[in-house]
Amino acid sequence: MKSVVIHKERDLRIENREAGQPGPGQVLVAIRRGGICGSDLHYYRHGGFGVVRLKEPMVLGHEVAGEVMSCGAGVTTVKPGDRVAVSPSRPCGACIYCQKGQQNQCLDMLFYGSAMRMPHVQGAFRQQLVAEASQCHRLADGISFEEAAFAEPFAVTLHAIVRAGAMTGKRLLVTGCGPIGALAIVAARAHGAQEIVATDVSDFTLGLARQVGADRVVNVAAGPDALSAFKADKGYFDVMIEASGNEAALRAGLECLKPRGVLVQLGLGGDILLPQNMIVAKEIEIRGSFRFHEEFALAVDLINRRRVDLMPLLTEVLPVDDAVKAFELALDRGRAMKVQLAF
Amino acid sequence: MKSVVIHKERDLRIENREAGQPGPGQVLVAIRRGGICGSDLHYYRHGGFGVVRLKEPMVLGHEVAGEVMSCGAGVTTVKPGDRVAVSPSRPCGACIYCQKGQQNQCLDMLFYGSAMRMPHVQGAFRQQLVAEASQCHRLADGISFEEAAFAEPFAVTLHAIVRAGAMTGKRLLVTGCGPIGALAIVAARAHGAQEIVATDVSDFTLGLARQVGADRVVNVAAGPDALSAFKADKGYFDVMIEASGNEAALRAGLECLKPRGVLVQLGLGGDILLPQNMIVAKEIEIRGSFRFHEEFALAVDLINRRRVDLMPLLTEVLPVDDAVKAFELALDRGRAMKVQLAF
Amino acid sequence: MKSVVIHKERDLRIENREAGQPGPGQVLVAIRRGGICGSDLHYYRHGGFGVVRLKEPMVLGHEVAGEVMSCGAGVTTVKPGDRVAVSPSRPCGACIYCQKGQQNQCLDMLFYGSAMRMPHVQGAFRQQLVAEASQCHRLADGISFEEAAFAEPFAVTLHAIVRAGAMTGKRLLVTGCGPIGALAIVAARAHGAQEIVATDVSDFTLGLARQVGADRVVNVAAGPDALSAFKADKGYFDVMIEASGNEAALRAGLECLKPRGVLVQLGLGGDILLPQNMIVAKEIEIRGSFRFHEEFALAVDLINRRRVDLMPLLTEVLPVDDAVKAFELALDRGRAMKVQLAF
Amino acid sequence: MKSVVIHKERDLRIENREAGQPGPGQVLVAIRRGGICGSDLHYYRHGGFGVVRLKEPMVLGHEVAGEVMSCGAGVTTVKPGDRVAVSPSRPCGACIYCQKGQQNQCLDMLFYGSAMRMPHVQGAFRQQLVAEASQCHRLADGISFEEAAFAEPFAVTLHAIVRAGAMTGKRLLVTGCGPIGALAIVAARAHGAQEIVATDVSDFTLGLARQVGADRVVNVAAGPDALSAFKADKGYFDVMIEASGNEAALRAGLECLKPRGVLVQLGLGGDILLPQNMIVAKEIEIRGSFRFHEEFALAVDLINRRRVDLMPLLTEVLPVDDAVKAFELALDRGRAMKVQLAF
Repeated sequence: MKSVVIHKERDLRIENREAGQPGPGQVLVAIRRGGICGSDLHYYRHGGFGVVRLKEPMVLGHEVAGEVMSCGAGVTTVKPGDRVAVSPSRPCGACIYCQKGQQNQCLDMLFYGSAMRMPHVQGAFRQQLVAEASQCHRLADGISFEEAAFAEPFAVTLHAIVRAGAMTGKRLLVTGCGPIGALAIVAARAHGAQEIVATDVSDFTLGLARQVGADRVVNVAAGPDALSAFKADKGYFDVMIEASGNEAALRAGLECLKPRGVLVQLGLGGDILLPQNMIVAKEIEIRGSFRFHEEFALAVDLINRRRVDLMPLLTEVLPVDDAVKAFELALDRGRAMKVQLAF
Repeated sequence: MKSVVIHKERDLRIENREAGQPGPGQVLVAIRRGGICGSDLHYYRHGGFGVVRLKEPMVLGHEVAGEVMSCGAGVTTVKPGDRVAVSPSRPCGACIYCQKGQQNQCLDMLFYGSAMRMPHVQGAFRQQLVAEASQCHRLADGISFEEAAFAEPFAVTLHAIVRAGAMTGKRLLVTGCGPIGALAIVAARAHGAQEIVATDVSDFTLGLARQVGADRVVNVAAGPDALSAFKADKGYFDVMIEASGNEAALRAGLECLKPRGVLVQLGLGGDILLPQNMIVAKEIEIRGSFRFHEEFALAVDLINRRRVDLMPLLTEVLPVDDAVKAFELALDRGRAMKVQLAF
Repeated sequence: MKSVVIHKERDLRIENREAGQPGPGQVLVAIRRGGICGSDLHYYRHGGFGVVRLKEPMVLGHEVAGEVMSCGAGVTTVKPGDRVAVSPSRPCGACIYCQKGQQNQCLDMLFYGSAMRMPHVQGAFRQQLVAEASQCHRLADGISFEEAAFAEPFAVTLHAIVRAGAMTGKRLLVTGCGPIGALAIVAARAHGAQEIVATDVSDFTLGLARQVGADRVVNVAAGPDALSAFKADKGYFDVMIEASGNEAALRAGLECLKPRGVLVQLGLGGDILLPQNMIVAKEIEIRGSFRFHEEFALAVDLINRRRVDLMPLLTEVLPVDDAVKAFELALDRGRAMKVQLAF
Repeated sequence: MKSVVIHKERDLRIENREAGQPGPGQVLVAIRRGGICGSDLHYYRHGGFGVVRLKEPMVLGHEVAGEVMSCGAGVTTVKPGDRVAVSPSRPCGACIYCQKGQQNQCLDMLFYGSAMRMPHVQGAFRQQLVAEASQCHRLADGISFEEAAFAEPFAVTLHAIVRAGAMTGKRLLVTGCGPIGALAIVAARAHGAQEIVATDVSDFTLGLARQVGADRVVNVAAGPDALSAFKADKGYFDVMIEASGNEAALRAGLECLKPRGVLVQLGLGGDILLPQNMIVAKEIEIRGSFRFHEEFALAVDLINRRRVDLMPLLTEVLPVDDAVKAFELALDRGRAMKVQLAF
């Protein structure tokens, strides 16, 4: 079966891998669509991110949807023919964090396409995949595989919304409108944020940001004064979702956050220089947000109920054999939002 | 009346200033004791801190206690002869933040001995002071002026505890055991923190930290591995109170915080370099904590009820005429914790 | 000017009252529409509610919108010709609750058309009204007075949503689908409740509940088993909004709430018999919700931005001279949801 | 081995039961002390409580401490000779509630001495007991079995404190000063409640309440006006812990709770008549609190660290052969607080 395997930076290959047979509680899924994520792109461009480095070839991909081919013993939640979104996350359920309901912090997490542990956890960009039945969430009639493959990144942003707290009456700043920032706008709008202002340096992405729910967009390529209107009376925004990982974006946003405002950090970068005195004096709250747990089922349900429309964010679907071309397209933030592979 | 006036860095003078007479709702207080705070020391050493700079001579001091001499019209809460702790904080009561119960973020705050606004708000290191009656909190019989002059910095740390959330079952790391860090230990212990570990680079301060409630102390002058025992399983501490403003202390602490751990930032510094990916991946919460509001009354009440013993933290009381000597002593972290002036 | 005055139960009269002239900071408003509220109906039917009794004639009404006629000195937020929704709430701003940001609990509240204090606070069902400028919230172009007169009851339900906490991923039960229950459905849907089930004993109101956002409706006139499907595994709902004041509805709902589920009580009744052991064993949280404060501005803003469509809930508009007829219609829950008066 | 077995109301027998041998992960404990709980007394007096009824003979008891005799395979946390407090709670770890960190709501809970499920879960009033190693918490040197046998009811009250939220600056009313109410006072005091007022109808229990930390006590046998001083300005208390299950106590307390005050319900009773309009108008929060989970380890740790002194609450220790006498003594609230059995 064809798989998309990263060997080292800029060395992405289509290789055959056996899927194997589903054991008890497991399911064999024919993958139909897979979205390319920022972390896939990091492996492609840099062979890792932060301190995480590729040490062996790894199948990429963790945003996938497909069709159930066969089920192992004891599976009752799905059956052959069901169309499903597959969660890439398999927490152990038993460690101290799982037992606190913080499964995304599991000490023994298996997460598709991640080089955090050795051997690496192989990913889901493959024509067939054996998954736990509990990872497979059924799609409603009429939901396409394209929409379903958005469930994972959408779950990431739903978790950020949960971390941010109730959106009722909140003015929200989203910095960075790549796929995660744009989906965060969708998630915040769906949960009633009173006003959403989005920033980026690309007019293409800002156009999509507006289309999926931003009330105002600001191109901050213009310079540091682009947000100055929001600094009066100690700040305008109740909540900021930082999805760029960019230091300048974060610092500019802090100046526009109200006292006791909440900044949810989603974007990854390296070390960033923060203004400690402003954080203290305005009593800012910075909260990291990492992956998701129960939000995956929520994402699928909101898609199934058609509460959100994610399709404007799909730029193009390319066949798996064009994976390299698809990755290159996904890197071009001037014309690409989400790029998916067809298997 | 003698006042302690800062003119510029290292230029501290004893000058005569008229106290004036109390108007309606006001009280004339004979100040008895005044504690030297870190911000007083900043003005003394650097003529300001962060972007705040002295632009005119300013009476220092905001940690004071004294005796009511006379009351203006309409004052009912105190009477001549009452011994009081005086809050340095006068929020406007009407701005958007006051009306949200966030008086410490008041847009029109008057806070003793602060150069944040122009003209500066003159401070309370003076023999007589006219204050609003609402700033004066009565002392119980037997409470000394020395204890009472701790009310203000203790209130700062009580606010940090409020910002941190319930202490029940929490393991707490306090980094930096100057007066604020040490008082934070007292506050956390009084509110039931399960275990408190304190760090500093001075054995003198760590000794006092232990005396007022730290279960364990770690001298981090030894280097970055001093806390390595607390890094297992993603971290040991639920809460961290950062009272040093020091980047290395903050970074070392982040590695010992559990996922979703809370870091309350009290210490002031400048720009600090933070590990963004760790904040995201462990979903750390960083919360600034600034001054106090209702915690001043709480501080006085806890002192009045003898729920806390702050006297181990008083190093020496010097007469106002020796203010320069007192400031120099207070700067010596190897032998001084809190230094007070007698008026 | 015509006013709608309640003298005693079932004694509602149209009388002339002088509006007076706006003083400094005040505004004279020509009222255009006024919605009849459940508390207006209580005064009409019973001459009061609970322990509150009419002791003198009182103009009813507190859900109104109109046009600014003239402004007193110093008014800058509105001008003659502006179309506004008028908040009935005037907290004092200075009491202990106002200074905590709990203005709806003000110790000196003036709330239109309320007999809680003596003399009663006269209401807003009158052709002209002098209000504080701060009570007047401008309408966007194209927003009708009918929509605007919903701002007040919608604010009540937004406050309930705030009390309930974030709606993200929450399954919600709404018991009682009169105007408040139905508006709570709108508010919960606008803030992203995952699933909403609504109950009532009237198919008419349940039809409207579905129209404004309930996913499922259950007529509980059928008896106590109507909700039994939701009791499995200790309960199905995360949140319940009780808008009937009915003991049976509340008890039936408690059985369907998950452990640690939140019940927000909006409906008023008298003494109710509650199953203490179930509240303890399932660790239910019951939270009262009363009126609103900042949610009034939010309600107007959401209406202005067309985030919600409240018009399906408007049953009929009658001229002020038909006030009695309008009140009788509003009492008929089999065919009326919200009834408004035109002035 | 001697066990204390309830057959039906007022039919309590000492019988021999085999303890069995510890399997993998299990421990054989020689029980030394066991405290008689209110639920034990309910079984003794009424053969059950609420809808829970005895359907077969059941060993009572769930507040026990003892000494490890032998360990099954794979036990590493304790060893023979260790002195331990034994938690009576064994959640499944896998159900939806356990996976949310709400183990006290486990759908498959095994809790010693409970007739909630059939067959009943046999209790711990027996000379030898096989328990999971994870239920056994080691005692520090010098901690007596008497103190350790308080860990369970103390954990119940620690959970109530967690449910109540941070105690900092809180004025607390405790209604009902039997063992649970009295331990709640200890727990609240240890976590910094600013002021604690306790009520009961027995001067004996109120004397102990004061001894363990109540600032004021009020005997409410005097009638409904006993608490009237606390009703001004809508109420005096931020938090109320209801430990009597008594309707009159609950209603009297509600009148003394501030707006948005929190009432934690611990006491069990039957149906109670509550004033719905007051709950709504003051926006009271009522929160049930049931058993505990991580608070058991916390209770043992606080006892081990000598942060609390529970011994004033121990009235008498009787030999297991005098179990009936011990139960009768425990029922006499005029002279007994906690009664323990020696095995």
